[in-house]
Amino acid sequence: MWRYAFEVMETLLNASEDDQASPALTNPWPKIPIPKPDTPVRNDQAVGFVLVHAGAGYHSESKAKEYKHVCKRACQRAVDRLRAGALAVDAVTAALVELEDSPFTNAGMGSNLNLSGKIECDASIMDGRSLHYGAVGAISGIKNPVLVANRLLSEAQKGKLSAGRIPPCFLVGEGAHDWAMSHGIPPCPSEKMASKFSLSAYKRNKRKMELAEKAEPGFNHQTKKKRQSSENENGSGLLDTVGAIVVDRDGNVAAAVSSGGLAMKHPGRVGQAAHHACGCWAENTRTQNPYSTAVSTSGCGEHLIRTMLARECSTAMQCDDAHQALLEAMQNKFISSPFLASEDRVLGGVIVLRCSRCSDSQPSSDIQAILVEFLWSHTTESMCVGYMSAQDGKAKTHISRLPPGAVAGRSLAIEGGVCRLVDTTAAID
Amino acid sequence: MWRYAFEVMETLLNASEDDQASPALTNPWPKIPIPKPDTPVRNDQAVGFVLVHAGAGYHSESKAKEYKHVCKRACQRAVDRLRAGALAVDAVTAALVELEDSPFTNAGMGSNLNLSGKIECDASIMDGRSLHYGAVGAISGIKNPVLVANRLLSEAQKGKLSAGRIPPCFLVGEGAHDWAMSHGIPPCPSEKMASKFSLSAYKRNKRKMELAEKAEPGFNHQTKKKRQSSENENGSGLLDTVGAIVVDRDGNVAAAVSSGGLAMKHPGRVGQAAHHACGCWAENTRTQNPYSTAVSTSGCGEHLIRTMLARECSTAMQCDDAHQALLEAMQNKFISSPFLASEDRVLGGVIVLRCSRCSDSQPSSDIQAILVEFLWSHTTESMCVGYMSAQDGKAKTHISRLPPGAVAGRSLAIEGGVCRLVDTTAAID
Repeated sequence: MWRYAFEVMETLLNASEDDQASPALTNPWPKIPIPKPDTPVRNDQAVGFVLVHAGAGYHSESKAKEYKHVCKRACQRAVDRLRAGALAVDAVTAALVELEDSPFTNAGMGSNLNLSGKIECDASIMDGRSLHYGAVGAISGIKNPVLVANRLLSEAQKGKLSAGRIPPCFLVGEGAHDWAMSHGIPPCPSEKMASKFSLSAYKRNKRKMELAEKAEPGFNHQTKKKRQSSENENGSGLLDTVGAIVVDRDGNVAAAVSSGGLAMKHPGRVGQAAHHACGCWAENTRTQNPYSTAVSTSGCGEHLIRTMLARECSTAMQCDDAHQALLEAMQNKFISSPFLASEDRVLGGVIVLRCSRCSDSQPSSDIQAILVEFLWSHTTESMCVGYMSAQDGKAKTHISRLPPGAVAGRSLAIEGGVCRLVDTTAAID
Repeated sequence: MWRYAFEVMETLLNASEDDQASPALTNPWPKIPIPKPDTPVRNDQAVGFVLVHAGAGYHSESKAKEYKHVCKRACQRAVDRLRAGALAVDAVTAALVELEDSPFTNAGMGSNLNLSGKIECDASIMDGRSLHYGAVGAISGIKNPVLVANRLLSEAQKGKLSAGRIPPCFLVGEGAHDWAMSHGIPPCPSEKMASKFSLSAYKRNKRKMELAEKAEPGFNHQTKKKRQSSENENGSGLLDTVGAIVVDRDGNVAAAVSSGGLAMKHPGRVGQAAHHACGCWAENTRTQNPYSTAVSTSGCGEHLIRTMLARECSTAMQCDDAHQALLEAMQNKFISSPFLASEDRVLGGVIVLRCSRCSDSQPSSDIQAILVEFLWSHTTESMCVGYMSAQDGKAKTHISRLPPGAVAGRSLAIEGGVCRLVDTTAAID
């Protein structure tokens, strides 16, 4: 059961690379008494929290600064929206737009090119309040696929279309592109979406494929044995789908994910980022669920689809100990999942948060607080994350890495923190 | 919790319309002592069982004969394959091909046309033994989408592609079509796929839409209230996705589903039939699961995606009482699901089976048997099913209907039976 437990790395939050910790984001995991924010909460500050990822995969030291920078900007965008009173679903969309716009991430601008040298993107979003979901798969010529997913979600919430037709929650390909156009989302010429990084990666990968197929001319018709002998070169490649999870001042959660998909994928291939329960999940607290939870995943789409990792992690987070629950979910529902028994390496990562309302420790106080427990975990070599609360001056970023010697796809890293969001508006009023 | 329990109809298997019951398919639900087959099992007969559906929706009395006939043929095709020693995944594909080829069903030939008058199909398949899954979404110009899904599954089982690339499990649109071509699956001109039924339905629906939009010119930009005032006309329409579930002589299970999607859907819309865990599910018995289970769904794709009904039913079937478990799953995870709280009518149906090995009641006997419990349940007005064991001379078919006065989308019907598959080969040898 715990085959790889000895390889697990558990890093405490205070081991983070970026030492400019925000006042509300503190404390090593596991739980310690909840701290009060060091800075007073101003009346004009709305409450909320965002955690983003720029992908589970491999993040070179040379580009670490860019990855962290885009995570920082994405957090800031979400927090700006939260401070303006936006709901979680809008804040999470704002974070995703920023992540998609970066040429360094494999989503939106700068996405991986497919076998035909074309960019086809997947994205989805889920609103924990309405439990609605919107997704696009293999969509081309749209700079921000998450905007289409968001629009599908909001259109579906309006109810039926003319003549009682049920609005779609998932559109793909040209149909998705045309729907986006007819809903006012501007097109973007495909050639403008490739970055110099994605173009040079395409050329490199194409050459690698040609060489591999030259060495094994019958590759497309070979036996299982032959196929498995081929090295897992994707294991060291970039799998940097992006995503974000948010809780707003009312305790609503939302999650989103966006991806250019695997490099050299077949045209029309749809990965976990467009797949309900696989790419992201968000569910507000209700009778059966003591916690509101939000999850966003990254990594090898096929592994994440077959294990439905986003929903599995969300379900696990209803247990008492969030850290232990995520650790067990990543071990039992992912690395050792019976659904991936034939895979030599299982590649993916998640960011999760769960939150619950709590009263201040002083009995006389009428200050309401939301306790947010947030974690990330990955089996890939690294994962880049950023987080920020609406009470903070700036975001904190971190590139989590497997410990030296740990094997990607068979080991995992898990880290996290706790944050208390205090809404003193009522008390001040 | 049991809001609609008073409306539940529970029909026993012996109330079935087709009275030519097969020897191995007997007995009202719930459990009674397992009977022995009336006819001797011949040595050349392989063991296995298939249950198919020609959709949950509305099946007119005038076309009842055709629906039953196609179900009968589909069962026969699967049983032919089982008798020839095929695995569950091949037998389930054979059943689906027959269902897709019928112009009466909304899958493959005769599929619903979309808004642009084009046919785009979804299909998926899952193998309970390997837990692999293959799916195509919004694919055009392919007579049998299930063959593409099946091929994706079998290609993925072979392991990695050249240069370590991970084979896709889900392809959509043109990319899916091109992949099918390059894997020897023949194209079919789109105009040949429409039937006179689907073409006349398209014209009728188009007129209906135009009239509705004329009556409410601002429909596309209206308020939620306006949208909801529009009648649920799909409720009385056809939602007849097809599917099948199979257990083979070794106790392996497989499930598949195929659909032309909702009438007048937006181009690029993908429904539950292409969605992992929503359209079909199959899982062989393993440590945590005492039963092998297989499920195939039908109905409104958006409702089935958001509730992930196939997997929910599969999970439920691990409980002691299969009938009670399915009833509770349909009530709590579908009709009263928090994921569909805003829907006035929740439209869908499932076929499920679960099986376990059992020894013959005579202690001296070395005859091994597989006990198959099979059920169907739907919230739509009707659902057409057929079933057959490899020991039977012909399939049994049935159109299950909600009782008079029950409201589609708020009530459910549930029926089922038990079948014992006996492999006497060892004893005879």
